[in-house]
Amino acid sequence: MDITWSNFKKQLPVVCQAIAEADFLAIDGEFSGISDGPSFTTLTNSLDTPEERYEKLKAHSMEFLLFQFGLCTFKYDDVKAKYIIKSFNFYIFPRPFNRNSPDKKFVCQSSSIDFLANQGFDFNKVFRDGIPYLNQEEERLLRDQQEEKRYHTNGASTTCYMYISPDASRAPVVPVIPDDQKDFIDKIVESVDEFLKDEEKKVLQLEPCTGYQRKLIYQTMNWKFPRGTHVETVESPNNERRMIITKVDEDERKNKEIQKKVKEQEDLNNAVGFSRVIQAISSSSKLVVGHNMMLDIMHTIHQFYCQLPNDLEEFKSLTNCVFPRVLDTKLMASTQPFKAIISHTVLAELEKRLQMPPFNPPKVESAEGFPSYDTAVGQLHEAGYDAYITGLCFITMADYLGSFLSPPQTHVSVQSDVISPFFNKLFLMRITDIPYLNLDGPDLLPTRDNVLHVTFPKEWKASDLYQLFSAFGKIQVSWIDDTSAFVTLTQTDQVQIAVNISRFAESYCVQKYAEYVAKKDRQSLSKRKRTDDGWMDFERKRTKTQYNLDQTFSTKKSINSVEEEPRPVSPEESEVLKEDTASPTASDAAESSKRPKTETDQAECSKHLL
Amino acid sequence: MDITWSNFKKQLPVVCQAIAEADFLAIDGEFSGISDGPSFTTLTNSLDTPEERYEKLKAHSMEFLLFQFGLCTFKYDDVKAKYIIKSFNFYIFPRPFNRNSPDKKFVCQSSSIDFLANQGFDFNKVFRDGIPYLNQEEERLLRDQQEEKRYHTNGASTTCYMYISPDASRAPVVPVIPDDQKDFIDKIVESVDEFLKDEEKKVLQLEPCTGYQRKLIYQTMNWKFPRGTHVETVESPNNERRMIITKVDEDERKNKEIQKKVKEQEDLNNAVGFSRVIQAISSSSKLVVGHNMMLDIMHTIHQFYCQLPNDLEEFKSLTNCVFPRVLDTKLMASTQPFKAIISHTVLAELEKRLQMPPFNPPKVESAEGFPSYDTAVGQLHEAGYDAYITGLCFITMADYLGSFLSPPQTHVSVQSDVISPFFNKLFLMRITDIPYLNLDGPDLLPTRDNVLHVTFPKEWKASDLYQLFSAFGKIQVSWIDDTSAFVTLTQTDQVQIAVNISRFAESYCVQKYAEYVAKKDRQSLSKRKRTDDGWMDFERKRTKTQYNLDQTFSTKKSINSVEEEPRPVSPEESEVLKEDTASPTASDAAESSKRPKTETDQAECSKHLL
Repeated sequence: MDITWSNFKKQLPVVCQAIAEADFLAIDGEFSGISDGPSFTTLTNSLDTPEERYEKLKAHSMEFLLFQFGLCTFKYDDVKAKYIIKSFNFYIFPRPFNRNSPDKKFVCQSSSIDFLANQGFDFNKVFRDGIPYLNQEEERLLRDQQEEKRYHTNGASTTCYMYISPDASRAPVVPVIPDDQKDFIDKIVESVDEFLKDEEKKVLQLEPCTGYQRKLIYQTMNWKFPRGTHVETVESPNNERRMIITKVDEDERKNKEIQKKVKEQEDLNNAVGFSRVIQAISSSSKLVVGHNMMLDIMHTIHQFYCQLPNDLEEFKSLTNCVFPRVLDTKLMASTQPFKAIISHTVLAELEKRLQMPPFNPPKVESAEGFPSYDTAVGQLHEAGYDAYITGLCFITMADYLGSFLSPPQTHVSVQSDVISPFFNKLFLMRITDIPYLNLDGPDLLPTRDNVLHVTFPKEWKASDLYQLFSAFGKIQVSWIDDTSAFVTLTQTDQVQIAVNISRFAESYCVQKYAEYVAKKDRQSLSKRKRTDDGWMDFERKRTKTQYNLDQTFSTKKSINSVEEEPRPVSPEESEVLKEDTASPTASDAAESSKRPKTETDQAECSKHLL
Repeated sequence: MDITWSNFKKQLPVVCQAIAEADFLAIDGEFSGISDGPSFTTLTNSLDTPEERYEKLKAHSMEFLLFQFGLCTFKYDDVKAKYIIKSFNFYIFPRPFNRNSPDKKFVCQSSSIDFLANQGFDFNKVFRDGIPYLNQEEERLLRDQQEEKRYHTNGASTTCYMYISPDASRAPVVPVIPDDQKDFIDKIVESVDEFLKDEEKKVLQLEPCTGYQRKLIYQTMNWKFPRGTHVETVESPNNERRMIITKVDEDERKNKEIQKKVKEQEDLNNAVGFSRVIQAISSSSKLVVGHNMMLDIMHTIHQFYCQLPNDLEEFKSLTNCVFPRVLDTKLMASTQPFKAIISHTVLAELEKRLQMPPFNPPKVESAEGFPSYDTAVGQLHEAGYDAYITGLCFITMADYLGSFLSPPQTHVSVQSDVISPFFNKLFLMRITDIPYLNLDGPDLLPTRDNVLHVTFPKEWKASDLYQLFSAFGKIQVSWIDDTSAFVTLTQTDQVQIAVNISRFAESYCVQKYAEYVAKKDRQSLSKRKRTDDGWMDFERKRTKTQYNLDQTFSTKKSINSVEEEPRPVSPEESEVLKEDTASPTASDAAESSKRPKTETDQAECSKHLL
């Protein structure tokens, strides 16, 4: 079901009910771009640490707009023995709803826009009828502004303040009238005096004036005529704003104030808009399933909650608050026992594969009043549809795990122990020796002792690196930037030889991975020392990290995927990928024999780094 | 006529002919936003110098996309005694046309997008079917890339190089084959050897391989089999790329190469896309008319020519090259004799006013095959329509000037002396004492000796400033940023008093405008000294400026508008504008009694700072 601003308010209760009754939720986002700086290859270097990956995505992906959000709720019906689904496709746009609303800017990346355009994405629906939103800070600011405005301008009695604002200590403002406004304000006071004496007249309409003058009038009215009047500003069809003063008794005035407050509350709710859906998902604490969902989660928090923290550990805590339980189907499909039987984990490929033995595609049914998706004519890259098939993939894989239980189960509930090992781990794209970001604790720290860090002149190409290391057999090059790369050797014992040889070189510099990391840590340490955090803070974090490291190894044993061998990457592949500019149209990426489906990969990447 | 990528190639000759035959051209652009930083008020401070205004627009407006370009050509028909018009509305989008094309990013500002959405702007037409473009640097790069690619991979003979590249000194590359590729390449060479010996076989299709391997194969073929073969890569429907080697005689091979080159040239032309329209406008040297056209010109040059220079004087030279003759109808309408009879110069208002006496709206007719616009049901803010009515306004005002000639003329040609004073001067929005940017020479330098520069704590509001200066009567506040503003006093002799009083203050600081400018100049001078430009360069520029200053005064006499008094701006207006966040929805701006049409102003601003 498409949800735009036109039907949002009507459908919000339906959405909230669907979330409340669901066994689990599947989500997916479509963005206006992926990287505002580095190429796709550099953004997802295969030797990134989780910290580096997070920092890069935070630095280069958050300026884009999440403008379509798919939510599919799944509720198991024991009688029918099938899932009943409700699918929603939200169009999102930071529409400025009034003059106080933030005028947001967002970046578009041509390749991503072009890719979505080719999929038939309806940009008019987003920009003309998208649902607005506020993050929590913006919501708070707006609430404060309303409060402040009410305090300065509202009503005309002290009792009124007590009703509107619980902060009764606030007395009406004594207006400070600039000299050049004194005549103007004196005349207004005079006319109000006359108006109050004239028993026939119920309403006084003032001449149009500036916003600044209106503010002064409000303050003066509060001060001089605290009772018996109601003051409001009305806007005419030709955009003129006039102030209207009405004689009212206390009941009438209170009533008007209540109405006004209700209206303001409604405006605020409207402005919070789509963020209320995310708040509903969050407070439900339901399992949230996504496919390659790191960017989805980062964008969702960034756009609808708050600015992302600089520190990865803080991001993990924050994610645990917003989404207490998440599951990434791309990670699940890349982990044993699935890894052995699933060769491609791109969403569309995965969905196809899971329809064949040994898997049993689940029975699902759209709830009454919800249109059903047909996977045969899939609307891939529509967020609602992608969320739907993500949910299907999850159910199929969960049910497959159930077949190993004794007795075997055809339906596995989300509470089952067979699923829990996959909770709160996000797939880390392309990083072969750290398969996931662990939201519940520290991440794996591979030694990478067959890896060299090489710096070289900007003119160097891949072929120069292959030539330089030609004595060491097959190598893998992972570009960091124009003048540095990681080079992975096949044999660890050759690392020292390469470092020794390089001591005589002037044009390039080679160091072991561990040395590079240590140097980088020292740099960020000295940087941190210069900040206000101080040494104590750093020490505390370091101790915490050491404690966490001990945990790592116990975690390591619990997940099969960690024990898998790194996927071998040929030097040619690195070469191809370096040439590739991450454009989703780059079909050249399809040619690596190791990754015959890279074209489809790239398609998905353009959306969310599969 | 709407021009998208679908009909661009077919209609380009029509566009070029329309430009070639026209008496003058009217243009207009629609952008995805206005300011990525400062509010609209700060971006257009009424005491900006032309340099400051240019720098701010360059820094804060160029990241947005010009995504609709209107062109209306006007050709006078002596027999019919009316203008024949051809109107084009181009949809523009930096579509990535292949993997080497730049993957451009652009910013969208919610308020601008929302404003256009409310006008019925078709975003799908832009993003799905927009015309691509390249600036000159990108075009050159692409041309070099094609050249380079041809040099490395094309054909298989040395003569071929001589045909394709005139650089005959370039010999085929001696391929450097990395160790791990040697086996692979040896096998390819072997199979080609066999293929050449086999008289029956005409075509050899290689197994799919990586892009890196293909490059090595091309180089090896050039080296080992320089004659008698043609090598090409074909892409299958499933995105596999295979190399195909064909036996050819020299004629066949040359033919294939010619075809390939023609195809490449066509691809390049497609990529240059809309920039060819701008090139046609530029090389026609026709008079280009726009309304409040500074941002239109800046965006056009930035998007389709080159990065804008840092220096305003260089920008003027560049503009003179790209658009040798421009005329700004907003400046024209703001200058005598029009100023006295035209109170609102916002495009839509101007167009309405010019339909009434003493003006005579011109007779125009759409050329055959071109749909005609109806000004009664105007499609305001569609670039093609805005260009059309801009042209109408220009003709009406020009004809009005003709009525003062003896004998009076009802039709004034673009060559007429009565128009030339308006050439190459761009309206400077809100700056009352420098009404235009002079593209043909130095700008006016008002002394501003009744102006103070004030710095103060961030917490200060307008009312604090009014209070501080309450002894000086009516003042005008022009905000620079959160902690500084210009304060204009009514009487120049009070400036020194204000400075004297401020010497005892700790929380704020007051200096004369001239001192502020001198300090700023010293700062930029010391900054410039640190750059590579060096002292000599600066001295040269300074001398040039002095020379130009002498010219200013002669220029000053030739334009009436310079002698006009600055429009008085009330402090309330500054206040309102400070509050205003430049959102086009901010109808509060409409309330200033001095500018009753500010709402419409703001609407136009959201497009191009009217």
